[in-house]
Amino acid sequence: MLRRFLDLADLSDDRLEAVLARARRLERSRTSPALAGKVVGLVFMNPSLRTLASMQAGVAQLGGSTFTISPGAGSWKLETRPGAVMDGDAAEHIREAIPVLGQYADALAVRCFARGVDLEEDLADGVIRAMAELSPVPFVNLESAAAHPCQALGDWKTLDDLEVPRRGGRFVLSWVWHPRGLPFAVPASTVAMAARRGMHVTVLRPDGYALPEPVMTRARALAAASGGEVVETADREAALAGAHVVYAKSWAAPSRYGQTGESELRAGLRHWRVEESWFAPAAPGAKFMHCLPVRRNVKVTDEVLDGPRSVVVRQAGNRLHAQKALLLEMLTEEGA
Amino acid sequence: MLRRFLDLADLSDDRLEAVLARARRLERSRTSPALAGKVVGLVFMNPSLRTLASMQAGVAQLGGSTFTISPGAGSWKLETRPGAVMDGDAAEHIREAIPVLGQYADALAVRCFARGVDLEEDLADGVIRAMAELSPVPFVNLESAAAHPCQALGDWKTLDDLEVPRRGGRFVLSWVWHPRGLPFAVPASTVAMAARRGMHVTVLRPDGYALPEPVMTRARALAAASGGEVVETADREAALAGAHVVYAKSWAAPSRYGQTGESELRAGLRHWRVEESWFAPAAPGAKFMHCLPVRRNVKVTDEVLDGPRSVVVRQAGNRLHAQKALLLEMLTEEGA
Amino acid sequence: MLRRFLDLADLSDDRLEAVLARARRLERSRTSPALAGKVVGLVFMNPSLRTLASMQAGVAQLGGSTFTISPGAGSWKLETRPGAVMDGDAAEHIREAIPVLGQYADALAVRCFARGVDLEEDLADGVIRAMAELSPVPFVNLESAAAHPCQALGDWKTLDDLEVPRRGGRFVLSWVWHPRGLPFAVPASTVAMAARRGMHVTVLRPDGYALPEPVMTRARALAAASGGEVVETADREAALAGAHVVYAKSWAAPSRYGQTGESELRAGLRHWRVEESWFAPAAPGAKFMHCLPVRRNVKVTDEVLDGPRSVVVRQAGNRLHAQKALLLEMLTEEGA
Repeated sequence: MLRRFLDLADLSDDRLEAVLARARRLERSRTSPALAGKVVGLVFMNPSLRTLASMQAGVAQLGGSTFTISPGAGSWKLETRPGAVMDGDAAEHIREAIPVLGQYADALAVRCFARGVDLEEDLADGVIRAMAELSPVPFVNLESAAAHPCQALGDWKTLDDLEVPRRGGRFVLSWVWHPRGLPFAVPASTVAMAARRGMHVTVLRPDGYALPEPVMTRARALAAASGGEVVETADREAALAGAHVVYAKSWAAPSRYGQTGESELRAGLRHWRVEESWFAPAAPGAKFMHCLPVRRNVKVTDEVLDGPRSVVVRQAGNRLHAQKALLLEMLTEEGA
Repeated sequence: MLRRFLDLADLSDDRLEAVLARARRLERSRTSPALAGKVVGLVFMNPSLRTLASMQAGVAQLGGSTFTISPGAGSWKLETRPGAVMDGDAAEHIREAIPVLGQYADALAVRCFARGVDLEEDLADGVIRAMAELSPVPFVNLESAAAHPCQALGDWKTLDDLEVPRRGGRFVLSWVWHPRGLPFAVPASTVAMAARRGMHVTVLRPDGYALPEPVMTRARALAAASGGEVVETADREAALAGAHVVYAKSWAAPSRYGQTGESELRAGLRHWRVEESWFAPAAPGAKFMHCLPVRRNVKVTDEVLDGPRSVVVRQAGNRLHAQKALLLEMLTEEGA
Repeated sequence: MLRRFLDLADLSDDRLEAVLARARRLERSRTSPALAGKVVGLVFMNPSLRTLASMQAGVAQLGGSTFTISPGAGSWKLETRPGAVMDGDAAEHIREAIPVLGQYADALAVRCFARGVDLEEDLADGVIRAMAELSPVPFVNLESAAAHPCQALGDWKTLDDLEVPRRGGRFVLSWVWHPRGLPFAVPASTVAMAARRGMHVTVLRPDGYALPEPVMTRARALAAASGGEVVETADREAALAGAHVVYAKSWAAPSRYGQTGESELRAGLRHWRVEESWFAPAAPGAKFMHCLPVRRNVKVTDEVLDGPRSVVVRQAGNRLHAQKALLLEMLTEEGA
């Protein structure tokens, strides 16, 4: 049985297909008693709307229950550093918190964003890995410093639903402007997902915003195994040519990650905002994707979001079905 | 089946009576599996005690589940303005949030108080109406800028429980002092409820605190249809003469709504506080009502709240029964 | 049937043994429908991790539901003082809040820490007692100004699990340094629990940190009844000699309770931190206990917490079993 879901890579190809098939069945038939008597503990160290609501709703629809702990807001602020002398704000360490909560629950699911100070540290995803190690029960990553695998799983299903071809499908991950320098969890998981799906993936971004080398290396290896391809460019026209999907996301400039100068670099890039005109060279009926939340008229115009290209609400809907399928895989015999 | 409950007016007379009858049955028999497998999504953009607890408890008693989203506290702050360029605090727009949450739930119920800047805007109740339009599932108003229909529904039941006469019952809505200038959701819903119930309604308030004209016009129309009456006065003795009920509530001066000068106008009115002596001209056994929370010894004295006139706890109890009846009306065949 | 659990003393010896026996059964068999249809209302006026999670999980495992109200964070700030003129921050009084919530729930469970201003007032535990009086349904103390009985109940079970002898068991409650002056709920409940269990209890603390006289008087009376003993000392070697258990906890200097000078008194005491070397004179296999959250390397070293002596995670696990047993005692016929 799957014990940890920290990254989409934790699902073998066979298991991934089985989870996606189950997600499709759960979309048609929402409720069952499969998790009756089971409790899933949710720990949110950062804000959430979709993940919080879909986990609570999904477990309930399967007959189970959840509890939610918000460190720093209702619960003690958690220390994550090994060996810390805890005379500051944090009253509790994950070394106690996770094993304790794991005694109350049949699974734990945790959101813990990047610290945003040291790029290498964040890409290593040490905090979520440490928490998973500490957990006595199955453990789900609800977005960590370097990965958002539930999003990737739902997005894979959305691409299947839309019949975007695996082999030959053209997927553009486009950087867009955002008031803050954001971490790499979503772009890293998205590019890896699309590459593993066998698509032709283009990372479209301004100079200075190339994805970190470990993220690209990994995506290229996945593409090599699946018959896909991963390229990078700052040329929008070329990137969009024949595209089936434009997936918008913002991220920090890797060279200035966690530094005050990062915002100056971004200052001249507000025109990196998805507009209807971007789609001129794309395939007919090309879709717009985004993981949400999305800042309207900052990352993408109302026209695109409210038009027929946008599948962002459907993406969010698939979070529910995908996560329920994943939990059944992790918590039931039938899923094993 | 009822799809939206934004205002008590959304219930026809027949449906209102059916919901009240069902609420009485649910008071005697609290639990059933009527909502088994159903999820109600709660969105609280403002604080709550009664509404939050009674919705969670009520759905659970009917075999269903809830999730709770608090924008700005655990979830992303929500933008409500159409066309906004979202480069400020709010990371997510209701245009995404509501359709997304509606995919996870069988009904949504939302609290979103008045912005308190523009009276006309708040009375139009555009934000809750926009959210209801965006919802793919039945939608309940848990207090908006201009209406608190669950409170009105529960209060109607309380008046029935107390055998306050419909035709001929004398209902006084009295303004009371409060440290802040409050919005019109509760007074507007209360005066409309009492007028529709056919009572003789007196709005007792100091000069400068007449309810906004649209609120009074609507209440008078409801009274005309039901055989009731709605009058306004600043004369307490006259207002209280023969009263069966005094319902205390504070609200801002409409002429200075959202303005800094509003508090100066209120400064001399701290004596507008309900005291036992107020009831001298009232009917024997006249009752004291309030929607809660109530500031003791500011809006009303301990003597009244702790004495036999006060039915404020019973009012709050009826919130549970009324909301459960409403949800069954909106979510089950039997309720249709 | 037990209606209030404000202190371990509310359980007679027979009932205490029955609850402990039931807790052991629940540890082996976690789920049952015993609380089906029941709702437990949780009110947290202060942060929580274990208590919040274990109450939610425990009630769910027994087939019931919970709701959670957090005054001041999502719900109105609550006034607790009788007769207050409420023109400040608090919008609601416990005199309304508790009876109202009690109408929605089959039991209420409340956390309300010490105010930390007046020692006598806090030791009298008036606020939680007032809330219990106001509750129309069974009421559980989830840590008040002066008591943490759910912790004491779980700790008793942990001591039983570890086969620490009742008569003759040597229990050391050791003061440890903490950045703030903490209240007496846990040390008072712990010393009373250990004394009632019949153990030889030593309170080890620096000069100026003797537990308040009412706490010690009560513990000595319990020891007298059970055949135990309670002593105090500042001599660590003597205290630890033959100890079976060291239970670490910090508390304020009673003589400077709520005063600014309290921190100066504590300043020189950072070496009061449990280390492996402390256990040299203890019994072989002596255990380390703590109620959690614990500040690592401030109250106790990593070496102790991560070593075989530490039973802190097990203690927290027993909170779940003990509280479930308690709720069955309070809410079911079988428990009566």
